[in-house]
Amino acid sequence: MAAPSHAFILAGGRGTRFWPLSRHANPKQLLDFTGEGSLLSLTLDRIEPLIPASRQWVITSDDLAPAVAQMLPDIPRDHIIAEPVGRNTAPAVALAAALLEREDPEATFAVLPSDHLISPAKVFRSSLQQALELAAAEDVLITFGMKATRPETGYGYIEAAEDLNGGARRVAAFCEKPDRETAQTYVDSRRHYWNSGMFAWRASVVLAGLERHLSDVVAPCREAAKQLGTSGFASALELAYGQVPSISIDYGLMERADNVVVLPATFDWNDVGHWVAMRDLWPRDAQGNAAHGEILAVDSAENIVYGPGRLTALVGVRDLVVVHTEDATLVCSAEHAQEVRGVLDRLKERGLTQYL
Amino acid sequence: MAAPSHAFILAGGRGTRFWPLSRHANPKQLLDFTGEGSLLSLTLDRIEPLIPASRQWVITSDDLAPAVAQMLPDIPRDHIIAEPVGRNTAPAVALAAALLEREDPEATFAVLPSDHLISPAKVFRSSLQQALELAAAEDVLITFGMKATRPETGYGYIEAAEDLNGGARRVAAFCEKPDRETAQTYVDSRRHYWNSGMFAWRASVVLAGLERHLSDVVAPCREAAKQLGTSGFASALELAYGQVPSISIDYGLMERADNVVVLPATFDWNDVGHWVAMRDLWPRDAQGNAAHGEILAVDSAENIVYGPGRLTALVGVRDLVVVHTEDATLVCSAEHAQEVRGVLDRLKERGLTQYL
Repeated sequence: MAAPSHAFILAGGRGTRFWPLSRHANPKQLLDFTGEGSLLSLTLDRIEPLIPASRQWVITSDDLAPAVAQMLPDIPRDHIIAEPVGRNTAPAVALAAALLEREDPEATFAVLPSDHLISPAKVFRSSLQQALELAAAEDVLITFGMKATRPETGYGYIEAAEDLNGGARRVAAFCEKPDRETAQTYVDSRRHYWNSGMFAWRASVVLAGLERHLSDVVAPCREAAKQLGTSGFASALELAYGQVPSISIDYGLMERADNVVVLPATFDWNDVGHWVAMRDLWPRDAQGNAAHGEILAVDSAENIVYGPGRLTALVGVRDLVVVHTEDATLVCSAEHAQEVRGVLDRLKERGLTQYL
Repeated sequence: MAAPSHAFILAGGRGTRFWPLSRHANPKQLLDFTGEGSLLSLTLDRIEPLIPASRQWVITSDDLAPAVAQMLPDIPRDHIIAEPVGRNTAPAVALAAALLEREDPEATFAVLPSDHLISPAKVFRSSLQQALELAAAEDVLITFGMKATRPETGYGYIEAAEDLNGGARRVAAFCEKPDRETAQTYVDSRRHYWNSGMFAWRASVVLAGLERHLSDVVAPCREAAKQLGTSGFASALELAYGQVPSISIDYGLMERADNVVVLPATFDWNDVGHWVAMRDLWPRDAQGNAAHGEILAVDSAENIVYGPGRLTALVGVRDLVVVHTEDATLVCSAEHAQEVRGVLDRLKERGLTQYL
């Protein structure tokens, strides 16, 4: 019987493309888009039957940690790790592995984003269990691959090689975000998967990989990990994060290692990348208008409206994103939804920091 | 020396194309679009140096009368006439003339809309004075004609005939709202003016015209006028308005009479017909975005935004009207601005009467 598995949820992002709903102190993963809970809460609820709260961890930024702790009362307090500064995902993974190896170097753990939507939960747990069992049995670094159903240019791709036992496949290559034409060849190949940013492995295996490919990350994280549960942990982490480079686990480890496998996902996945993703989350009327809040649409189709507690009337408009919050309103064309983060730069330029 | 002139301001309209700012209890003429006062207040302020408050009258609907009275503290209380029901403009003009003839049948008066913007005020007053002097001297019905500067299809036109003394011209014909092609021939002719809905005449002259062309309107209004200043006025007016037809002064009198003259306007006129008119009223940025309230525009041009006390961010949008109020938001394409009134029908259908 393998050791109990853990889950580390990465919740340090800012999700600026959901402005004006997302703010510096209330980023995407803390938002409740559907009325069923925040993306972070839903992420933990989803794995709970497989990995209970006592083995769930959240790595977030120190300014968000209090809000995260309040949102997740069931998770042990010292499992909410407050990063003093963002250093991308590789140091977070190294820290996670270092924290677990103190008890059991052979412990398996999953690394999951906090701001994606996945369903059905049962299918996801089954897939996750399969990954953790594979990680327990083999010295592999497992990444979940999403079936590439459209020529999406916003994701990285994973090219799969031969099948292994249990549905996993060797990885032939990681591919950067492609242009449209290349993306289409990936979709047509049926050997390419979207890189989801979800991983599973044993602490010892990922630490060995990091020591080989990102040696300067491991030692500082191990030093900090020793202090968990003591009053010195925060300053130890600050010291460590002052020493490690800022680099992603994909770039720093996965693309360099030769023991990477991809596990094709059988569940539905939505990375909730920008407001247009709400078309899949919110009720839509006969004209394709998706809304959270009351709308009245006249000669209007395919719009996306967030405005709880008020009426939003649309007249003669199409493919717009309309988001109403207490102090700010966004009106954006759907095709420009990726560019909402540009608003934040302009707000800073103009000194309108109260809206950040 | 002619008798002192009066002014009757017609303020019974609803201006539904300014929803969601205009509401049943707060229609267009009571709205302050510029921060300088409501359209109604501005109308009265504009004529004040020529026609003082003591000779200003407002004809409005009975539900709006209290708000009108509060907005216009300088006008005598019995000069605010509360119509029990809307009957278009001909009965209002008949009532106005009947009210004045009790004191002096040869009194001159102007009839003015309450929801237009006119500038410069001094030029307007000079034109109004000229009209009232002409009305005192001649048995004519005077309408102000606006120079047709573009092939507007939303207005009626007045075709002018030969010049009279003092700049006025005989009227050859009233023309219904034309199609675009016809409108262009009107503009090219240089003999056509927009019908502005502003008039001047003597009480005796307009009553004579009405008796001839709309005989069933005059007698009930005269009966009601007798009761002004008594406790019986409201019920007398209700009785009168129960008897008169609903018809406009243009259709009922001006198009039928043979003593109509047009006085070409020398002032700027904006009938503030719908939200797009705000392009001429509000500050515009370098991309042509007109706003009342703070905006942040990224790749966005020619939009019209009302949102005082909040930030409205625009990303990748063009030619939109965005209006924010406490409980409702409108997003409308500029070319559909005329159709905003359609929202009200839909609100009624859906029982959302709190937004009317």
